[in-house]
Amino acid sequence: MADNGGLEGVVVADIDTSYIDGSIGKLIYSGYTIEDLAENASFEEVIFLLFNTRPPERGEYEELRSRIAENAVIPADVIEMMRSLPRDTAAMAVLRTAVSMLSAYDADGENLSDKERAKAKAFRLTGQITTICAAWIRIAGGLEPIAPRRDLSVAENFLYMTSGADPDPTACAALNVYLVLLAEHGMNASTFASRVVTATGSDMHSAIVAGIAALKGPSHGGANSEAMKMFLEIGAVDNVVPWFEKHIKTGERRIMGIGHRVYKSNDPRAGILKRHSKALAESSGKRKWYDIAVKLADTARADDYFIKRNLYPNVDYYSAILLYTLDLEIDMFTPLFVMSRIAGWSAHVIGQMGGRLIRPKANYVGPQGLHWVPLDKR
Amino acid sequence: MADNGGLEGVVVADIDTSYIDGSIGKLIYSGYTIEDLAENASFEEVIFLLFNTRPPERGEYEELRSRIAENAVIPADVIEMMRSLPRDTAAMAVLRTAVSMLSAYDADGENLSDKERAKAKAFRLTGQITTICAAWIRIAGGLEPIAPRRDLSVAENFLYMTSGADPDPTACAALNVYLVLLAEHGMNASTFASRVVTATGSDMHSAIVAGIAALKGPSHGGANSEAMKMFLEIGAVDNVVPWFEKHIKTGERRIMGIGHRVYKSNDPRAGILKRHSKALAESSGKRKWYDIAVKLADTARADDYFIKRNLYPNVDYYSAILLYTLDLEIDMFTPLFVMSRIAGWSAHVIGQMGGRLIRPKANYVGPQGLHWVPLDKR
Repeated sequence: MADNGGLEGVVVADIDTSYIDGSIGKLIYSGYTIEDLAENASFEEVIFLLFNTRPPERGEYEELRSRIAENAVIPADVIEMMRSLPRDTAAMAVLRTAVSMLSAYDADGENLSDKERAKAKAFRLTGQITTICAAWIRIAGGLEPIAPRRDLSVAENFLYMTSGADPDPTACAALNVYLVLLAEHGMNASTFASRVVTATGSDMHSAIVAGIAALKGPSHGGANSEAMKMFLEIGAVDNVVPWFEKHIKTGERRIMGIGHRVYKSNDPRAGILKRHSKALAESSGKRKWYDIAVKLADTARADDYFIKRNLYPNVDYYSAILLYTLDLEIDMFTPLFVMSRIAGWSAHVIGQMGGRLIRPKANYVGPQGLHWVPLDKR
Repeated sequence: MADNGGLEGVVVADIDTSYIDGSIGKLIYSGYTIEDLAENASFEEVIFLLFNTRPPERGEYEELRSRIAENAVIPADVIEMMRSLPRDTAAMAVLRTAVSMLSAYDADGENLSDKERAKAKAFRLTGQITTICAAWIRIAGGLEPIAPRRDLSVAENFLYMTSGADPDPTACAALNVYLVLLAEHGMNASTFASRVVTATGSDMHSAIVAGIAALKGPSHGGANSEAMKMFLEIGAVDNVVPWFEKHIKTGERRIMGIGHRVYKSNDPRAGILKRHSKALAESSGKRKWYDIAVKLADTARADDYFIKRNLYPNVDYYSAILLYTLDLEIDMFTPLFVMSRIAGWSAHVIGQMGGRLIRPKANYVGPQGLHWVPLDKR
């Protein structure tokens, strides 16, 4: 029998990027609590922190910010490939393909030997993934993609490239916080996939493509999409209580985005996202989804089942509201997750470089000692 | 400290596809020795065996063969994307991108819920990967790609599509045997990457893309390329002994393609590939590389160092000769490996479907308890 198909509890690496204590709702990146970073740091600073285990000096920050923005342009051939795709292609399949294709145009695409060069490549990919996400929104909507600007942050550039207008500061702040909060989360399945690929000596693009491939799975990156589908099904604040009562009666008590495998008290990211979702709802006048989410959370938190089991809204619950209020379609939720998590994946790739091949064992349970009868005698 | 960064000895799955006993040089697929299959089975039969743990009936075999051939056509958009790439793009990057792009045109590209539909998708991908490999050889060489034929096997179709001529039977037999021998090999790194992706509930294309990403690594799929570079460096049979003596004198005793991490006696695949390489060398008149390989193997096998350590030529050693004698460039060696291993990966994807999320642990060794100083106060 397989010992441990899910590898629960098996420690595969020492890391300095993040630490989670789910029992007390704690998440830190390289020594700093997620609350501290959400309040005080930009996504670009968090990238530097994850790559270097310290905050950037002013000059380092400026350099990193401009390197990401200056390299965010994607080759015309990649845009052409995206244009050629059926409009209903899953956005994660578009992103997986476009990132894979980018390696052919990267001057250092095939190399994975030097950590500084790997960081430089991660900066390029961070900017380019931002551009791919925005470009696909435009292309799928029948619009011309907009080129990135060199003076904007990742959050600002993304919002600019989706509309062509100067982005709203509340929206930029909300998206920046989202990017900070989702950037890294220990040894999750997509990060592990990136590490398995890195350990073969493959290349950065291959590792990130594997991360995208894994994050695409509904059991991994798809949870906030499912939460949003639920909010859409509810449809109005007045429907929350009847929906909840009907839902509970079916015997299916699980609510998408409430409760977390790791966090057994509050998910520290949820409250921060809730605050920014509220600000966004108020500034944009699009309150409906925020109001539904708060009402449903309050309703669940007043129910014995949820109280006894310490089930609280998690990162997916309010990130769904935040992204939808930013006018993103559900299909774009997981690509936006990639836009952030590229930071953590890259930090893990750099940490894994030069490490041992990751090659567990299988237990053979099939037949033995058979003799093949050739087809013409079968 | 990380317990086991390489996951050595950790059993992650029960499988019925293959079993390896390296101490006695034994490899079986679902009960049949690799020698038996190489002698008596086609690649298509091996695919059926790996998917169903039994050989196909005549009708099942015919159906599978025609399903692969009939679905081997790739969409014009994918060909266009390939044409747009720089000619010097790594063939594995081309293949990774093209397979990723194919999901957008697959009627069932986003689904991974039903094992029979997953098998059907694997048949399509098997044919399409064959076509992509042949098409890239043509495109990189400035030639028009040739469409697949519906009446040919995978081995025949590949050779036909590279040249447009009816393929030589000795070449077809050699390539078929190569495809049989490389189709499956337990829980290697690329297979594991496919399983990690599958376990998130992602899709078949994502899982295969992750396999390609991992196989691309020099520590995994790149070994026969390295062996061929060594043969090219030697360059002539008369250079073998001087090269060997000089190589040994450097203190670096390792020879690419001699010795294997798993097989501590003969690699059972090596002798079979040697036989087919010989037949191919004789029928084509291109003996040089075969003769160099045999001479080098004999020289090494007469050396105490190699005798004492039971170091024999492995699968990479003679597959390099076989593929090069089939006029394949070194850059195409790993894509040809994919053309075969898609069988094993797909069988593992099907075996993993519905399984637990694969999520090991990391050990945090970074700082704790820091306070972030905002950038403008730093």
